[in-house]
Amino acid sequence: MDVTVLAGGVGAARFLEGLVQVVPQERVTVISNTGDDEDFFGLRVSPDIDTVVYTLAGAIDPAHGWGLAGETYHALDALRRFGYETWFSLGDADMATHAFRTRLLREGATLSEATARIAAAFGLALRLLPVSDDRIRTLVETDAGTLTFQQYFVKRRTEDEVRAVRFEGIEDAAPAPGVLDAIAAAGVVVVAPSNPVVSIGPLLAVGGVRDALRTTAAAVVAVSPIVGGRTIKGPADRMMASLGMTPTAAGVAEAYADFLDVLVIDEEDRALAPAVEATGVRAAVAQTIMRGTAEKRALAEAALGAVQ
Amino acid sequence: MDVTVLAGGVGAARFLEGLVQVVPQERVTVISNTGDDEDFFGLRVSPDIDTVVYTLAGAIDPAHGWGLAGETYHALDALRRFGYETWFSLGDADMATHAFRTRLLREGATLSEATARIAAAFGLALRLLPVSDDRIRTLVETDAGTLTFQQYFVKRRTEDEVRAVRFEGIEDAAPAPGVLDAIAAAGVVVVAPSNPVVSIGPLLAVGGVRDALRTTAAAVVAVSPIVGGRTIKGPADRMMASLGMTPTAAGVAEAYADFLDVLVIDEEDRALAPAVEATGVRAAVAQTIMRGTAEKRALAEAALGAVQ
Repeated sequence: MDVTVLAGGVGAARFLEGLVQVVPQERVTVISNTGDDEDFFGLRVSPDIDTVVYTLAGAIDPAHGWGLAGETYHALDALRRFGYETWFSLGDADMATHAFRTRLLREGATLSEATARIAAAFGLALRLLPVSDDRIRTLVETDAGTLTFQQYFVKRRTEDEVRAVRFEGIEDAAPAPGVLDAIAAAGVVVVAPSNPVVSIGPLLAVGGVRDALRTTAAAVVAVSPIVGGRTIKGPADRMMASLGMTPTAAGVAEAYADFLDVLVIDEEDRALAPAVEATGVRAAVAQTIMRGTAEKRALAEAALGAVQ
Repeated sequence: MDVTVLAGGVGAARFLEGLVQVVPQERVTVISNTGDDEDFFGLRVSPDIDTVVYTLAGAIDPAHGWGLAGETYHALDALRRFGYETWFSLGDADMATHAFRTRLLREGATLSEATARIAAAFGLALRLLPVSDDRIRTLVETDAGTLTFQQYFVKRRTEDEVRAVRFEGIEDAAPAPGVLDAIAAAGVVVVAPSNPVVSIGPLLAVGGVRDALRTTAAAVVAVSPIVGGRTIKGPADRMMASLGMTPTAAGVAEAYADFLDVLVIDEEDRALAPAVEATGVRAAVAQTIMRGTAEKRALAEAALGAVQ
């Protein structure tokens, strides 16, 4: 059975660690968010793609959940000399990935092609697709003005109240080759436990993706990133609330109701099952907190089991 | 008095360390060779420019004579994963310089502008000019085929017999802004103790530079990079011999005779003074081996003193 996963960053990467224990990588396609991509120091950085690659390669820094284990920051230190702000922390080995991606893009490769080469270099066998080869930039409107996602997320540590989120370039962004097919032809489509607004949101906003999810013959299952009204990591709960969404599993169901068959909610949220099902989405209850390898595998099994 | 220096890499940088002890940096213009410039890993590397900058900033790796002191190589190690050859050793902090230069060039800056910003970031007050903002590539014809300078010099450790040297792009290379003026308006022009073929050669081949040297009112003095028939460092002696030049101080005088007033030769080569003067260039004898700070200063004083 082919499984296609709509993925953001850390939460998605952790979910995928479980999924590849139960589905061969060759049967897995990951469609990755690129709205967080940004240029730093002249290098193109694709944080969500790299988090998935590094995690599945076993190379991720476990303390951060992003970046490479055992990093040093000598290039970043040296960049300060040139007047750069260095709040976006790029390690020396990580810099090599961005230099490689940047060179390929400058030589005319698409982001899909660059991503495939990076994933292969890290030994991955799954197919990792950016949602689009066209540039999308997630912009966050706050009282402090319009911020890029990384300014909001990293530089200002999600401290600003979010008034609106928009995806610059989205009107002209075509799905990358393979994206719509991977949704149409999958046995199961999984929406990973990622931020519905800024991680999954850009994917759904690319022309044709949401329609493909609505019309695919595949079962579509999501794992709620909200547990007990809070996110495990990141600002999804506060962001949903600011934007008038319900910051609970029921709010996630509502956001995806037009294409979602099943939402996996945490045992802690068992009481929310009726609210989820009121949106027309079936609720499945599982342990969704992924502390170790066994929990990750169990969650993947629960998600796939919920639609089989 | 304004001093303009025609410069290659390590030998020139060491000479400049002495010069700036006797002439304020604000009065010094360095015209730098760019024929060795190459792209590695998608980054533009300007070895001679950087060697001058790092040396004068006191940041050079003293063991190598190039690169930054205390370097680590984590990015380079990580680049191997992407299939790159990594014989050109770029440290992590050095990589920051190249990333900065590459970004500026890609954003439309000239190499002159990028070089000025890099020199300023390292706290230099002298004016450092690439000989041209147009791309020049030194190509070395050998029995093993045509090699770029870095392939010849670094990858193959100068082991190939050199049949010919040419400068790709030289016909279309205009002198960078300020280059011809710096030669015309100087009080003294110094040709640094650099390889006459591949370090000074590209400078002389850029349209207008050699004529400017011939016609300037400034005294033009060179320091011979050949002592006792050998170079201190690098392949200049073998290269000159292969190309039919005399690999001695007299051969250096001959190569520069059309514009040179004085050649500073080493005490060891005192007996070559008549052969030098037979080319029409006056010989001045000095201690040219620059072991420490005092010797560097003394050599700069000797070079300037020889034309005053």
